[in-house]
Amino acid sequence: MTNKKQNPKSVGLVETQRIALPLPSGGLVLEKGGRLPDLTVAYETYGTLNDARDNVVLICHALSGDAHAAGYHSASDAKAGWWDEMIGPGKGLDTDRFFVICSNILGGCMGTTGPSSIDPRDGKPYGSRFPEITIGDMVVVQRLLLDHLGIEHLEAVIGGSLGGMQVLEWSIRYPTVVRRAICIASAPSLSTQALAFDVVGRNAILMDPCWEGGDYYASDHSPVLGLAQARMLGHITYLSPEILKTRFGRDKRPDESPSGRFRTPFQIESYLSYQGNKFTHRFDANSYLHITHAMDDYDLKEKYGELEQAFASVESRFLVVAVSSDWLFPPEQSREIAAALLRAGKSVSYCMLHAPFGHDAFLVDIDDLTDTVRAFLGLATPGAATQDRDASIYCGEDYEAIAAIVPPHARVLDLGCGDGALLDRLRRERHVRALGMDIDLPSVIRVLQRGIDVIQDDIDEGLTLIPDADYDTVLLSETLQVVRKPQLVLNEMLRVAAEGVVVFPNFANWANRWRLGLRGRMPKSGALPFEWYETPNIH
Amino acid sequence: MTNKKQNPKSVGLVETQRIALPLPSGGLVLEKGGRLPDLTVAYETYGTLNDARDNVVLICHALSGDAHAAGYHSASDAKAGWWDEMIGPGKGLDTDRFFVICSNILGGCMGTTGPSSIDPRDGKPYGSRFPEITIGDMVVVQRLLLDHLGIEHLEAVIGGSLGGMQVLEWSIRYPTVVRRAICIASAPSLSTQALAFDVVGRNAILMDPCWEGGDYYASDHSPVLGLAQARMLGHITYLSPEILKTRFGRDKRPDESPSGRFRTPFQIESYLSYQGNKFTHRFDANSYLHITHAMDDYDLKEKYGELEQAFASVESRFLVVAVSSDWLFPPEQSREIAAALLRAGKSVSYCMLHAPFGHDAFLVDIDDLTDTVRAFLGLATPGAATQDRDASIYCGEDYEAIAAIVPPHARVLDLGCGDGALLDRLRRERHVRALGMDIDLPSVIRVLQRGIDVIQDDIDEGLTLIPDADYDTVLLSETLQVVRKPQLVLNEMLRVAAEGVVVFPNFANWANRWRLGLRGRMPKSGALPFEWYETPNIH
Repeated sequence: MTNKKQNPKSVGLVETQRIALPLPSGGLVLEKGGRLPDLTVAYETYGTLNDARDNVVLICHALSGDAHAAGYHSASDAKAGWWDEMIGPGKGLDTDRFFVICSNILGGCMGTTGPSSIDPRDGKPYGSRFPEITIGDMVVVQRLLLDHLGIEHLEAVIGGSLGGMQVLEWSIRYPTVVRRAICIASAPSLSTQALAFDVVGRNAILMDPCWEGGDYYASDHSPVLGLAQARMLGHITYLSPEILKTRFGRDKRPDESPSGRFRTPFQIESYLSYQGNKFTHRFDANSYLHITHAMDDYDLKEKYGELEQAFASVESRFLVVAVSSDWLFPPEQSREIAAALLRAGKSVSYCMLHAPFGHDAFLVDIDDLTDTVRAFLGLATPGAATQDRDASIYCGEDYEAIAAIVPPHARVLDLGCGDGALLDRLRRERHVRALGMDIDLPSVIRVLQRGIDVIQDDIDEGLTLIPDADYDTVLLSETLQVVRKPQLVLNEMLRVAAEGVVVFPNFANWANRWRLGLRGRMPKSGALPFEWYETPNIH
Repeated sequence: MTNKKQNPKSVGLVETQRIALPLPSGGLVLEKGGRLPDLTVAYETYGTLNDARDNVVLICHALSGDAHAAGYHSASDAKAGWWDEMIGPGKGLDTDRFFVICSNILGGCMGTTGPSSIDPRDGKPYGSRFPEITIGDMVVVQRLLLDHLGIEHLEAVIGGSLGGMQVLEWSIRYPTVVRRAICIASAPSLSTQALAFDVVGRNAILMDPCWEGGDYYASDHSPVLGLAQARMLGHITYLSPEILKTRFGRDKRPDESPSGRFRTPFQIESYLSYQGNKFTHRFDANSYLHITHAMDDYDLKEKYGELEQAFASVESRFLVVAVSSDWLFPPEQSREIAAALLRAGKSVSYCMLHAPFGHDAFLVDIDDLTDTVRAFLGLATPGAATQDRDASIYCGEDYEAIAAIVPPHARVLDLGCGDGALLDRLRRERHVRALGMDIDLPSVIRVLQRGIDVIQDDIDEGLTLIPDADYDTVLLSETLQVVRKPQLVLNEMLRVAAEGVVVFPNFANWANRWRLGLRGRMPKSGALPFEWYETPNIH
């Protein structure tokens, strides 16, 4: 363990800071009307703030997280911070480059003011008196912390799950502060199913006689049974059915003796019991109630009418990341965010991590996430440094032929964009506004490295994230031959752009020479007639 | 409501019978070693037992069901039995034809002996003394009831979920008794995820202080909060995320006033609370514990080593039905049952109902299920009485050409079998053992009506249910042209049969004349070389 702490990729020993932030007289007024007379925030930092104070990355943690995101609190500390794999020299959030901050959220129980904190008005814990909080309030408190630290701009704000909701809120509330926003395995509002699980989870606490309406801090007992029960249920939803099957199956404990009547001998029962019990040693039931309630309440569509309206003032470049096996915050919800940002005309990239783990993948299965985040932050990703697949096509007469079709400053969508070399050159030389699309994550990562927006998607499923008539030119280069539904794809191309260009290999001429162009006009009738003809420039 | 009860499709007014069954001295010895000194069974019957006593259909109910499956208990009864849509004149379980029996399961709380029953040894409820029960015990008790009623054979046994487990157990324990077995939305054992939910559900009861170790019957209080909580959680798992979204979304109650602190205004919360509370008025917490524990324990693979070994002695014809949106008993588990029955050389049909409802679809969304069950039971299904799609091909020289290839008494698999006309004629004239496969449910239903086994599946996904080398001849007639992955399908054909025959339309000869045959030999090496040539008989 000592070795691990001396590991050059660890941030090493760290300390949680606690700071009482200055508030206006009357205290902090919360979004739902409540008031906090004082405010303490617990936070940790990793890396070094540069002189320009512009290398700051803010991490927003999820339901059960805290300020201790990386490193160790002592030499005897057995466990690193909750996102240690992501934070450190050379990691996703590279502390050689960035000054990384993570603070415990408002309403939490790890140092930031929450229901278990002392109300200065009478010196007793808030308990049932703690006011209702929102995701917005959490973000306001983070902003107050940054103000106090003299930080005016964020290079990036990043978070998964509840943390992703805070990322959305940051980019909406403080559009000029956040340069890049990374929203992982999150949603603009919880699904009905997720709401339902939260109802049952909170119910477990509310029905625990030790909860005492929230005022249990002076008692010998706290609602640990209810809190453990809520955590056990939550835990099921954080994991995919596949990973549960792989990890536990119907395996039984070696001793085969259940711990009591109606207890089973299955490993999954002892695992859940262990997780539930462990959670009660570090978490407060009232914090669980307040934070899940704030998540349930969060609803950008309800607040702004339409999701793209919520994003109207966003100036951040967005990276939206889904996890394939996540059923609590399913990929459709991340896609919804990305689609709305595109409709709002914002800069957004989207990718889906193929990870079997479920929702928790962003915490535990992070190699792909690390590469994606590094690329989006403009850092080298060693794994992605392979040869350009199709470099040859983007030079000489091939490029000239395409460039001749694409007007300067056009909005260009490149389907099957590979590593983005074509878009990169068009951007440099034709000053286009570029969006790439590819199904392959390593390609997507290379496009991100170029600073070009990219959507990871299967074009055979239709360009479902792309709004109607949003592009001047849509390119399908070197891809038509692998498309399974060419008719659908061609129709979709003409839905999203005024002009489509199809480039494909001439198999009769193995030396990769040229080709054919497709040009179409958006139909005004809703039917999709289009004409094929060769553009004169190509031959 | 009176009208509804007089509806000619209702079984009308019915009554739950209760009968004390004679037991050997020493009482009923249970599978896990416990003993019951006496045994009462509650049951209902619909329709008329014929003189041969061979028109009996037994229904096995699920966790929260009871003996009252159809009809009304009184003229003022607002609600019909739990499967009223399925049972009655002209319905799926047609009472014009069948004598339908449904009994409350052992361990239940609706009239059959269970933990809330009086222990005759001291006149007090069993409570904590009620012995551990199994699915096998439930089936043994049903058999005792039938013995008492003088019924030696079942035309069919049918059930969904836990009821499907009983169906499996019936066919395994009493192979000569059960002619047809219909297993719906069930599994040979619960998935890890389902186990996990059961752990949390039972925990809610066990942690309720009113549970009192199971001896709460003499108390003023019973563990209704815990039982409601378990039911709420269960309810989420019975519904698909899609139906939750469609039905409730993030809709709020009209009054918008949550019922207490940390209660939400969402419809889904009041719906779940209502369902949980309602359940406590009709169900007993100890029954919930015992029955879910028996489900968790059920594991045919553990008991028999391999699933096909469990089915080795089965003589029933099987119909296995999955529900597309069921995530508690996902279709893979039904497929596992069907595949094992096929490996064991048994008669089995499989289909998947495309229903958005989730696990509960077999209770509430039953039109397709009704047609499927009627067809499997040999009854006419009006909806399926359309014209033969490809009738022409199965007569004249076309049929002769195929028949010449298929040896008498061969095992024949017909891929894309349509309505089964070809298999039907081959069965009549060549006495083949036939299995059809088609992706289309109406076709599958028509094949079932012919009394031919059929698997509903997408052959483009590979013939994953079919064991290696299980057939003499596999036919792919009029289907190759719609196959997306012909290479995969042809390889699969040669995996499962000694000989493959491919029949496809000659587009150059629009009059639907002939064709081409493919013949292959099973490779002995594991590689899959095969030769194309025209069979001499064809031209």
